[in-house]
Amino acid sequence: MRRTAQEVAAHVGGELRGDGLTVLDSVASLKNAEVTDLSYAEERFHDDVVPSRAGCVIVRSGEFPSKTVIIAGNPKLAFARAAAWLLAEATGDVGIHPSATVAPDAKIGERVKIGAGAVIESAAVIGSCSIVEAGCYVGRGARIGESCRLYPRVVIYKGVEIGNRVIIHAGAVIGADGFGFVKDGAAHVKFPQVGKVIIEDDVEIGANTCVDRGSLETTIIRRGVKLDNLIQIAHNVEIGEHTVIAAQTGISGSSSVGAQCLIGGQVGIGEHARLDDHSIIGGQGGVLNGKHIHGGEVLWGTPVRPLKEFLLQQAHLARLTKKKRV
Amino acid sequence: MRRTAQEVAAHVGGELRGDGLTVLDSVASLKNAEVTDLSYAEERFHDDVVPSRAGCVIVRSGEFPSKTVIIAGNPKLAFARAAAWLLAEATGDVGIHPSATVAPDAKIGERVKIGAGAVIESAAVIGSCSIVEAGCYVGRGARIGESCRLYPRVVIYKGVEIGNRVIIHAGAVIGADGFGFVKDGAAHVKFPQVGKVIIEDDVEIGANTCVDRGSLETTIIRRGVKLDNLIQIAHNVEIGEHTVIAAQTGISGSSSVGAQCLIGGQVGIGEHARLDDHSIIGGQGGVLNGKHIHGGEVLWGTPVRPLKEFLLQQAHLARLTKKKRV
Amino acid sequence: MRRTAQEVAAHVGGELRGDGLTVLDSVASLKNAEVTDLSYAEERFHDDVVPSRAGCVIVRSGEFPSKTVIIAGNPKLAFARAAAWLLAEATGDVGIHPSATVAPDAKIGERVKIGAGAVIESAAVIGSCSIVEAGCYVGRGARIGESCRLYPRVVIYKGVEIGNRVIIHAGAVIGADGFGFVKDGAAHVKFPQVGKVIIEDDVEIGANTCVDRGSLETTIIRRGVKLDNLIQIAHNVEIGEHTVIAAQTGISGSSSVGAQCLIGGQVGIGEHARLDDHSIIGGQGGVLNGKHIHGGEVLWGTPVRPLKEFLLQQAHLARLTKKKRV
Repeated sequence: MRRTAQEVAAHVGGELRGDGLTVLDSVASLKNAEVTDLSYAEERFHDDVVPSRAGCVIVRSGEFPSKTVIIAGNPKLAFARAAAWLLAEATGDVGIHPSATVAPDAKIGERVKIGAGAVIESAAVIGSCSIVEAGCYVGRGARIGESCRLYPRVVIYKGVEIGNRVIIHAGAVIGADGFGFVKDGAAHVKFPQVGKVIIEDDVEIGANTCVDRGSLETTIIRRGVKLDNLIQIAHNVEIGEHTVIAAQTGISGSSSVGAQCLIGGQVGIGEHARLDDHSIIGGQGGVLNGKHIHGGEVLWGTPVRPLKEFLLQQAHLARLTKKKRV
Repeated sequence: MRRTAQEVAAHVGGELRGDGLTVLDSVASLKNAEVTDLSYAEERFHDDVVPSRAGCVIVRSGEFPSKTVIIAGNPKLAFARAAAWLLAEATGDVGIHPSATVAPDAKIGERVKIGAGAVIESAAVIGSCSIVEAGCYVGRGARIGESCRLYPRVVIYKGVEIGNRVIIHAGAVIGADGFGFVKDGAAHVKFPQVGKVIIEDDVEIGANTCVDRGSLETTIIRRGVKLDNLIQIAHNVEIGEHTVIAAQTGISGSSSVGAQCLIGGQVGIGEHARLDDHSIIGGQGGVLNGKHIHGGEVLWGTPVRPLKEFLLQQAHLARLTKKKRV
Repeated sequence: MRRTAQEVAAHVGGELRGDGLTVLDSVASLKNAEVTDLSYAEERFHDDVVPSRAGCVIVRSGEFPSKTVIIAGNPKLAFARAAAWLLAEATGDVGIHPSATVAPDAKIGERVKIGAGAVIESAAVIGSCSIVEAGCYVGRGARIGESCRLYPRVVIYKGVEIGNRVIIHAGAVIGADGFGFVKDGAAHVKFPQVGKVIIEDDVEIGANTCVDRGSLETTIIRRGVKLDNLIQIAHNVEIGEHTVIAAQTGISGSSSVGAQCLIGGQVGIGEHARLDDHSIIGGQGGVLNGKHIHGGEVLWGTPVRPLKEFLLQQAHLARLTKKKRV
C-alpha cells in the first residue's frame, strides 16, 4: 500500500520532520532500504540514518538534516505498527478455489479465501475475511474466527475453536489426540481424548507446532499468546494471556502457564506444573512434574532454579576443575 | 453409539449397581458430564460422584445411593475400554473421495476411506477398514494394514510397512531418508538410505513425528509402542514392544530401546546406544553414543546417571552455593 | 540401473579384482545382500566378505578368493558414490499432474515433475529436472533451482530462493515468519518478517524442519549444508558451507554458524551467537545469547564449555556424591 511519510507519522502518533510527501510502500533495515522504504533506528545506530537510502526513518530524537524522519517514543514499536499498516495485503484474492473440498453445510463467511486443495469438513465455520491457504484441513465442526490466516497445510482437528485474527503457520497441527494411556498388563489402552481446544484472539502459532486437544477437559491458549515453531502443547494445558514461548519447547499434560510469561526455547515443563504470571524460564530449562513456579522469578537449569543460583553453581564447578588441573 | 449402563458393565466385566437401563452415548469427567455420559472416579474423588450429572460412574468400591455406578478393579482402565467402545465411530463414511489420486494398481481393501486429495501411489496396499484422511500420501509399494487410521497430511514414503490398528496423527512422516553422509574433503556425500521401516500392530504415532527409513537395514517400531508428537526416530533404530516415548525425544541412528521402557520428553539418545527392557529415562535426559543402559534403572541428567545420584549431586551443588552466600 | 562391476569400479576410480562382468543393480549391507547387490566392508568386517551373497564388495585391501571386489582407498565413500549412481531413478515420470494447480505465469523448466495436488503460485520458478512431489506448496515468486527434489507436503513460502540439487524432505517448511515481536504494554506487536531465505546448492533438509525467513535481512543456508529432521532455524541466521546439524537442534535469531561445523542433536543456540568455522557442539549443548565460539573447539553442556572441562566437572560431582554415601 502506498502511504506518505505524513500519513505514516499520523498512523503511529509520531512527529514528522522533513518531507511529509515522501511516498513509502514497504519497510527495510537501514542497510537494505530503498527510497520508498520506511526504516527505523535505535540510538546506537543514529550514525547510519543519514547514509541510508530509506525514504523515511523512525527515531526517538535527534537532528538528521536533509533526511525525512518520524520522532516516536518507541521507534521499534512505531515501526512494527507502521509496517503492519503498509504491508497489509489487498484481500482481492478471495473465494473458494475450485479444487477445494467444502462440505455443503460448512459456513463460510464473507470475503474468505479457501486455497487450492483445502478441505473444510461438515459443520465447520470460517469467519469473514479469513484466509485458509492451500492444502489446509479444517475438521468437522471446527470454528475459525474472523480475519484469521492459516498458512498452507495447517491441520485443524474436529471441534477446535479458534478466535479472531489468529495466525497459524504451515504444518501446525491443532487438536490431535493427547498422549494418554492406561496400563493393561504390558500393553497400553488409549485413554479417551475427547476434550476441546480453544485458541483465543490474536494468537500466533508457528510452523509445525502441535497443540493437542484435551482428554476430558479443554486445552486453552489465551488471548495474545505467541508460540514459535515446533512447540508441543499437551492435553489440558492452559497458557495465559500474552505469554511468549520460543521454539521447540514442550509443555506436558495438565500444566498451566500464567499470563505474560517468557519461556525460552527447548524448555521442558512436566505434567501438572503451574507457572505463575510473569514467570521467566531460560532456554533448555526443565520444570519438574507438579512444580509450582512463583511469578517474577527468572529460572534456569534442569531442574530449574533461580538464575543467580544456577550461575553460582556453574562458577563453582568451573573453579574446582580449574584448580584440579594445576 | 448408544449403550445401556448394563451393557457397559458387561463389556468391561464390572458389576452394575443402580439403574442398568440408563442410556449412555459418550464419556466425560465428573465435572463436565451430562446425563448420557459415562464417567469414572479414583478414590480421592469419591465425594464428587454423587454431585456429578454423569449417567453412570465407574468406581473401585463404595456406596453411592441414588447413583448408577459400575464397580471395577481398575476404574480408569475400565473407563478407557468403555470409552473406546462407546465412541467407536460408525464407518459409514467409506469410499474413495473423487479428488483423491489412487494408482490403478494400488490395492484398496474393503470398507476403506480415502479422503479428499489423498494420494496412493503404485503398488501400495491399504488394508480393509482403514481410514486414510484428506491429503495423506502413501508412497509406492507401501503397505498399510487393517483398521488403521492415518489423520490428515500424513506422509508414508515408499515401501514402508505398517501393521494393523495403527494410528498416525497429522503431519507425521514415516520413511524419510536417514541422516547419513560420508565425508569427501570438505563436502558430504549421501550414504544410501534404502532400508525399510516396519511399524507393527497397535502402534500410535503422534503429530509431526518423524520415523526415518533404515540406511541399509530396517527401522522397526514393535507392537504396541506409543510415540508422542514431534519425536525423531533415526535410521536403523529398533523400539521394543509396548515402550512409551514422550514428546520431542530424539533417538539417533542404530540405537535400540527395549520393551516396556518409559522415555520422558525431550530425551536425547545417541548413536549405537542400547537400552534394556524396562529402562526409564527422565525428561531431557541424555544417553551417550554407544552407551548400554541396564534394565529397571531410573535414570536422569546429561549424561544419564541413576536418579538418586543425580538428586544427590543437585543437592550438593545447592548447598555449596547457599553456604557461599552467607 | 544395471551396471557391471567393471563399470562401477571405473566410476569410483577403484581397481577391480574378480569377474568384471558381474551385473549389479542395487546396494545392500553384507548381511542382506543378494547376488545383484553391491556392498562394502570396513577392515574389521573383512571376515564377512566371502560369506556374503553380494555380487561385488568394495574393500580397502586384501585377498578374497572367488569373490569379486573393488579396491578403493575409502570403501565407504566409494560405496556411497556408486550407490548414488546405481540408484539414480529414471526420470521418465515427468510432467504436471492434472490435479496440480500451477499459476499461468509460473515458469516450469524442462523434465520437471509436479505431483498430484501440488500448488505452484504466481511467478514461481521450478528449474529443469526438478521433482516437486504430491501436495507441495511453492509460494508466489519462489525460485527452485535445477535437479531439486521436494518430497510430499513441503511448504515453500513466497520469495524463497533455492539452489540446485537441493533435497527437502516431507513436511519441511521454508520461509515462515520469524518469531519477532515488540512489546506494547502487556501485548506484543508483530515485528515485520519480510526478509528472504536463500538455500544454496547441494543442501539437504530433513522432514518437518523449519527455516524461517529473515525479518528485515536474509536467512542463508550455504552450499552443502545438511540439516536433519525437526530442526528450527530462526530468522536472519546464516549457516556456513558443509556444516552438518543433527535432529531437533534449534538456532535462534541472528546467529551465525561457520563452515564445516558439526552440531549434535537437540543443541540450542541463543540469539546473536557466533560459531567460528569447524566448531563442534555435543548433543543437547546450549550456547548462550551473544556468545562467540572459537573454531576447532569441542564443546558440551549448558552453557557449553570445553569437553574436557565438562567431563572433569561431571567426574568431580560423581566422586563427591559417592563419598557422601559411605
